[in-house]
Amino acid sequence: MKVFSVAGITQSGKTTTIENIIRELRKRRYSVGSVKEIHFEQFAIDTEGTNTHRHKNAGSQLVTARGYHETDILFQNKLDIDHILSFYNHDFVVLEGVDDYDVPKIISAHNEEEVLERMDDLVFAISGRISNTIDELQGLPAINSMENIEKLVDLIEEKVYDKLPAFPEECCNECGYSCRELGSMILKGKAKREECVLENTKVKLQIGGKDIKMVPFVQNILSNAVLGVVSELEGYMKGKEISIHIE
Amino acid sequence: MKVFSVAGITQSGKTTTIENIIRELRKRRYSVGSVKEIHFEQFAIDTEGTNTHRHKNAGSQLVTARGYHETDILFQNKLDIDHILSFYNHDFVVLEGVDDYDVPKIISAHNEEEVLERMDDLVFAISGRISNTIDELQGLPAINSMENIEKLVDLIEEKVYDKLPAFPEECCNECGYSCRELGSMILKGKAKREECVLENTKVKLQIGGKDIKMVPFVQNILSNAVLGVVSELEGYMKGKEISIHIE
Repeated sequence: MKVFSVAGITQSGKTTTIENIIRELRKRRYSVGSVKEIHFEQFAIDTEGTNTHRHKNAGSQLVTARGYHETDILFQNKLDIDHILSFYNHDFVVLEGVDDYDVPKIISAHNEEEVLERMDDLVFAISGRISNTIDELQGLPAINSMENIEKLVDLIEEKVYDKLPAFPEECCNECGYSCRELGSMILKGKAKREECVLENTKVKLQIGGKDIKMVPFVQNILSNAVLGVVSELEGYMKGKEISIHIE
Repeated sequence: MKVFSVAGITQSGKTTTIENIIRELRKRRYSVGSVKEIHFEQFAIDTEGTNTHRHKNAGSQLVTARGYHETDILFQNKLDIDHILSFYNHDFVVLEGVDDYDVPKIISAHNEEEVLERMDDLVFAISGRISNTIDELQGLPAINSMENIEKLVDLIEEKVYDKLPAFPEECCNECGYSCRELGSMILKGKAKREECVLENTKVKLQIGGKDIKMVPFVQNILSNAVLGVVSELEGYMKGKEISIHIE
């Protein structure tokens, strides 16, 4: 699953850029999901007086509204992006205005100043109103999504890599980088997505049907805990693959 | 996770009954979630013009709105109740107006006729406006949730069992019943929740593709060894099934 974000202030053309990107990605037959960060203290999707709102006010801690054509699951807290992405299974996911998650990033801006404020090593393109006046800034292409969406989406196809695990820096480092640094090196063409050692993992864990990523150190602990028990059982053969299912 | 439903037509006092139940369950320190079925063709929680609505219209197939105090995951189809319940991890979940899922049921009604229309072997109580005039119907207690919520929630605590697997009839039948029939027998006091054999085969092990039989004692050792590690990992959720594969 390839995840990228579009960052920028209100009225910079962010949502328009995203609409154009989503349309073009769908045109190219990809499945697409999106996450919109809402920077508005009073935001509430459900309104006073609905039955779901009455459930919540009575104390229901997770309310779902199921209609004929949609199902809305209303969590009463700000979920981590990793938790949110666990509900997705799409070729591409676009994040709008999310700034606490390290993925390749397009900056949408009115002018140079706004770009420079948001510039970092994960930016791979510039778009929004500024792209009406310039084609390039600090070596990065500025592409107008109204006039040149094919070029922008070509770049997304070229640059955006399968989501890295997003472990904290102190936790893995097996590839020689933090996850964020590896991402930045991939964007620069100095590293490959396959360098993430978790691709080659020998111990796989699923909970409730969802993959749980483990750094090699934790994989070893789990593997040793399992072997400690099963190697005593009749039928155990060293080197054979082991599957365990706990309901 | 104990799941039950409240069924009945509009204005029968269904949502009021549910509000009172949720409040009382929370007062008794249970965690509670709920699902509201919306029988209204045009229902849409998101409205024209919002940025999330623009994402959807551009072709985003799963849109999430993340605010400071809530996260709303907006699926664009009617999800199965089993799929919806996979997001829950609460002591009790109340379903309002859901009629395609076999769980213990309270009927909310204006009058006898409405009760009889909805009566089946999973009904364990009657509530709503009818409970202003009668105390009992066909051997089932009619309880007013405004005046007697303690009695109604005592009954919920007594009757509602941990959700059964909801396998199709032809699929398991190991206990001698379909899942629905077992539920009905539990409500009548003629069977116990523990008769569901899936309770007793919790740990499965394969080595080199072959099933390794374990006595319950060894199943517990292996299960505890695994849980000792994985319960510390991010993404772990109590009660969810765990799969491990070691190459």
